[in-house]
Order: sequence, then C-alpha cells, then structure tokens
Amino acid sequence: MSPDSNQKTVLDPFGTSMVADYERLYKEFGIEPFKPLLSRVPNPSMYMRRGIVFGHRGFDRILGAMLKHEKFAVLSGIKPTGEFHLGTLMTAKEIIYFQQQGAQTFYCIADIEAYEDNKIPFEKSEKIAVDNIADLLAIGLDPKRAYIYRQSKEVRVKDLAIIFGRAPTLATMKAIYGERRIGLYLSALIQAGDILLPQLEDFGGPKPTVIPVGVDQEPHIRFTRDLAQIFGRKYNFILPSSTYHKLMRGLDGSPKMSKRQMNYFTLHDKPETIAKRISNAFTGGRATVKEQRELGGAPEICPLYETCLFHFVEDDDKIIKIYNDCKSGKLLCGEHKKQTIDTVLRFVKEHQRKKKNFIDKAREILQVE
Amino acid sequence: MSPDSNQKTVLDPFGTSMVADYERLYKEFGIEPFKPLLSRVPNPSMYMRRGIVFGHRGFDRILGAMLKHEKFAVLSGIKPTGEFHLGTLMTAKEIIYFQQQGAQTFYCIADIEAYEDNKIPFEKSEKIAVDNIADLLAIGLDPKRAYIYRQSKEVRVKDLAIIFGRAPTLATMKAIYGERRIGLYLSALIQAGDILLPQLEDFGGPKPTVIPVGVDQEPHIRFTRDLAQIFGRKYNFILPSSTYHKLMRGLDGSPKMSKRQMNYFTLHDKPETIAKRISNAFTGGRATVKEQRELGGAPEICPLYETCLFHFVEDDDKIIKIYNDCKSGKLLCGEHKKQTIDTVLRFVKEHQRKKKNFIDKAREILQVE
Repeated sequence: MSPDSNQKTVLDPFGTSMVADYERLYKEFGIEPFKPLLSRVPNPSMYMRRGIVFGHRGFDRILGAMLKHEKFAVLSGIKPTGEFHLGTLMTAKEIIYFQQQGAQTFYCIADIEAYEDNKIPFEKSEKIAVDNIADLLAIGLDPKRAYIYRQSKEVRVKDLAIIFGRAPTLATMKAIYGERRIGLYLSALIQAGDILLPQLEDFGGPKPTVIPVGVDQEPHIRFTRDLAQIFGRKYNFILPSSTYHKLMRGLDGSPKMSKRQMNYFTLHDKPETIAKRISNAFTGGRATVKEQRELGGAPEICPLYETCLFHFVEDDDKIIKIYNDCKSGKLLCGEHKKQTIDTVLRFVKEHQRKKKNFIDKAREILQVE
Repeated sequence: MSPDSNQKTVLDPFGTSMVADYERLYKEFGIEPFKPLLSRVPNPSMYMRRGIVFGHRGFDRILGAMLKHEKFAVLSGIKPTGEFHLGTLMTAKEIIYFQQQGAQTFYCIADIEAYEDNKIPFEKSEKIAVDNIADLLAIGLDPKRAYIYRQSKEVRVKDLAIIFGRAPTLATMKAIYGERRIGLYLSALIQAGDILLPQLEDFGGPKPTVIPVGVDQEPHIRFTRDLAQIFGRKYNFILPSSTYHKLMRGLDGSPKMSKRQMNYFTLHDKPETIAKRISNAFTGGRATVKEQRELGGAPEICPLYETCLFHFVEDDDKIIKIYNDCKSGKLLCGEHKKQTIDTVLRFVKEHQRKKKNFIDKAREILQVE
C-alpha cells in the first residue's frame, strides 16, 4: 500500500494540508485547540465534528452556558461588498447553529467597514445588505429571534467605538492593521463595538458571547478582548469568546478565494458559470486515470473535496465514503466533479427559490424603502 | 519724549507686543489680515474694532451674506473641562455678536474631545456642560435662536466623522496633531463634523459659516476646509470661514493662561481670589513711581491692560484714555489695578446673579435630568 494508506484516511477524514499552519496558531497566538472540548458539546455542528472549527478562545465559557442552559449570545456578520459566497455562507451557518442551540443572536452588516476599507458608499451597501440578509434568512436564520442591524444605524455601536478610542495607542493599531487611514482604525473600533454590543444593558447586560469567525479574523478578536478588559470595570464585560474555522481554498488550489482570481462561486452565479468553475477546478487527482486507480487521489489537497466537506455533503458517512473512495482510487475526479456540480446546482436553485420570498422581509428588517 | 511717544500710542492703541507673530501667520499659513475688511463690516464687534480679531479665512463670504442679508451661520463651542474663563468668554461673545447680526447660531459642547483628550468621563462633562451653558446664556446668547448640543448626543456629527474618516492619511493626522491615540484623531474628525453640521439639509443646507476661534485653533480650520473640499461633491459644502482672535496672556505675563500656573481667573472664582490674582499681576509699569511718571507705562506688554482691552472696558474712548494715561505716566499700576478689580468684581457679581437663573434652562437645553 502507498503511504497514503486507507488507515490514515480513516483516522483523518477531515484533515487538510494546511493543518500544520493551524498548529502554529495554537503555539504562537495562544488559540486553543477545539478538539478537547468536542466530546462535551451537546449537539456539535458539522463544522465542529469535521474539525473545520479547529480552535477557540474561551469557548469553555460558552460550553458551560450551553450545558447549564444559561443565557449566552452569538454575534457575527458580513461586510456588504458583494454577493453571498461560500465564505459568508459558512459564518451564516455557524450563527444559525448557535441560534438553534439557544443563543441570543446578533447579525451585523459591517457597512462602516465596507465604506472605510472598500470605499463602498452607504447607498450602495444598503442594497447589497438587503440581498445578503435575504440570503441569511433563506439559509435558515430565524429573524424573530435575532437582532440584525447595520453599523451605520446602530448608535450604541458607534458610541462604544468612541469610548474605546481612548485606549489603543497608534503603535497598537499599526501593529494589527498596518499603516492605514484613520477611518480603517475607526472601523476596527466599531467592530469591537459590535462584538460587545450584546453585553449592553439594552440587551440584558453582560453575558458570554461567542464570535464564530474565520481564523483570519483573529486579530480583531484579540483587539476586542483587550478592550473588553480595559473597559471591564465600567461595563462589567465578560471577555468575548471565539471559534475559528479554517478557510476554504480557492477552486484553483490557491490558498484563498479571491474575487480577482475568480476561483470561487457565489450563490448568485448562473448555473453555467458554477458548472464551469467546478469543471475547471484544481483537484487532488493524479496525472493519468491509470495512476489514480493505482495510487488513489489526494482529497486533503483538493478544493473540490473541500467544497463538499465544508458545504455540500452534510452527512458524515457520505463524506467519509467520498474521501475513502478517492483515496482508494475508486472515485475519479471527473465523476466527482459531475456529482458535485449536480449537488451544488440543486442547492443553489432551491436557495434562489427560497431567497426570493425573503427580499421583502430583509427590507423590513433593515428599514430600507 | 521717549520712543514710546503718545503719537505711536494713538496710532496703535490696540496693539500688543505679539503682533509680530501674527504677521508671521499671514505669511506662513495664508491667514488673511482682517483689517482691510473692517471698514465694510456694518456693525463691527469690539474685538474687530480693537484688532483682537486680527485674521480670517474666507470672511469675505460672511461679509457678503451680512451685507446682502443672506443666510449664514456661526458655530463655535467649548470643551467642557472646567469653568468659564476669560478665553471661553471671548468665543461666547463672538458667537453672540454673530447671532445678533442675524447668523443661524450653533454652539457645541465638545464632550467627545474632553473625553478623548482630557479623559473626562461623559457623566462628569455633562455636569460641567450644564454650568457652561448657563454661563453662555447669562452672557447673552438667545437660546430660542440657537442650536446648542453635545457632540456625544449628535448622531449627525458622529456620522460626518465616519464619512470623513476615509480621507485623511495617517501622515496628515500626525502632522497636525502629533503621534496621538486613535481617539484624539477621531475627535478631530468629530470637530470637522461640528463645523460642517450647519450645512446639512436638516439645518437648511449649504451656507456660509463662520467659526470664530483663537488662532491656536487654526489647524482644525485648515483640516476641516480640506475635508469640505474633498467631500464637496457629495454635500455641496461651502468652505467654512473663520476669524482668528489673539490669545490673552496670563496675568503673570507669560504667553498663555494655564491652569497649572494659576495665572488667570474664572467667572466662578471667589472675589478675594480674583482681587488677589489681579493685585499680583505682572504689569507694564516701571521700576519706580518716579520713573513711571516720567517715562510712562507699557500697556502693550501689560496683561492687566489686556484684561481691560479684551473684556472689561467696552467703551472704545475709555480704553483709549486708559492707554494714553498709562503711556503718559498719569495712570499708575496701583490705581489701575484697583479700578480693574472694581470693574471685574462688579461684572462677576452681576454675572453670577444672572447665571443662577439659567441653570434650569441649561439643563433643559442639554436634556439633563
């Protein structure tokens, strides 16, 4: 048998080639591994089960609240710069998971960040936000039990940013965000305001709050935890907790999905476009069919496998079967692409149908004419 | 006759030894001299007549509006860090002057700046602000025709700051304000928001606006004019105008009034304290009475004379007489101190009496319980 043995496969069906980097995060940044907590989570999410949520800060506190049925909150959001893609879909699903576990739910439209960082005027981000929220509702967030807001309209968040402004030195801001315009630093303070909003008296006061994010957002979390500590006496903030998920690679195998490289798809691309992007995706396949039958594929480096693992194959047994069939050389890339195209297009079609019905509701929530 | 001849006296009764520095401002910073406009101002203020308002930016535009009875606005304010002193009194009188000339009037309590720059919590600055506004009303501002607000409660100002945040580079902020915490830069953006607030649609849209300030505030004005230009297309801002007044020296003759040096008095000091500060003031007197009788005093370097010139002798003929009597050796420092103490204490007593009646009104305006 090859070194990529079935034995290893079964042991690490949810691994990726980037695991080593995540290990580094544990050591260098003090992110704690999620795995030791997993067995105690009453009803772990798909992302938790699959190790996609690989790390956390202070999740013990959230777990405690879940186990004792005490109140806790979840907050995350979206920067309204474009259509829902697989990255934003992930955060949305994480929010929905925690809502279903009983969390007081907050979803933030980061339109100030979109303005300061991406120069998107508020008139434009408002339209995008309506679309994003319709997506969120179609995916399953219950708006009746959630506070959905735009930063630009949420005075409490802006006021927290003003309060926090006194603390961080310019050196701190530069260390975290680089030499940027003042507005970008301001939007970082605003984001800290978002994260601590659930703990204001208006929302029932201090409580454990979990922020599920991609690991690239870790600096924001650390920054906010520092602020929560500094202003702890005034507000009695409980340090916010976080979970970190791995980031999906681009379909071309590059480490990040990027607009410029068009190496991903959104939930609003045409079926032909999606099919074409998947067909052209980089895979973990071998040079020839013969080789692949003999040696097996390499799902751990395959963005197509990742697409299934992160999103489109929810049944754990099924995804393990795909992994093993690939590793054993039974499932070839061409067939897997065909299967994946079918699955994705079915999901997208259904999503679009549902979403249409939520546009009016999204307008109502965001108070957009 | 000495070189300090009566001839020179009559020519420059309102000069100070610091004039040379102001000349430099014209050249280096492009501040325009006010004097050439003076004859066209319909009803010039005491500060204008006396050359205390010595410079401006774009005041032609305000003058035009005054002459044609077109709408214009005036805005200035106070940082609520303590009691009204002679410096804040000056700005207050300038605001009241423009209000009386028909300006739409804005008075800002810069409590965000007090927080970010002086670490004064909002609970504390609120109390100070009530006191400051009672002073302002006692001095003569008509609250029925003025918009008086706190930065922390004025969402439109905060939103302008967020809009403006995208433009200035970090290098610009550092050049103007030095290497400061992010909150200080934020409060500079907030102040720009204050200055442009009168031009928002809520207040009748773009209009000439004059900001009467001490010359030390010039960097704010330039900063805001730059922002008004950058965001001109979106808001149709008219570049704000400014007038610059000279700064009073400390009573000890040092160039600035300073809390640490206790070289000034507030409108709330005890009569004994005020009398003592004036008695101990540095003057432009000579070493001996005999010398002074012969050579005359030097009002142009005398903080006591300045106190009268800036505030307590409103009649131009009277102040010219004081100047000439001093220059000619007729008026000695001891006598002038006695006169000044009488005048100041009479004013302060009357002010305190009036002010008491305005405390409730000030609370109402600021919506403080």
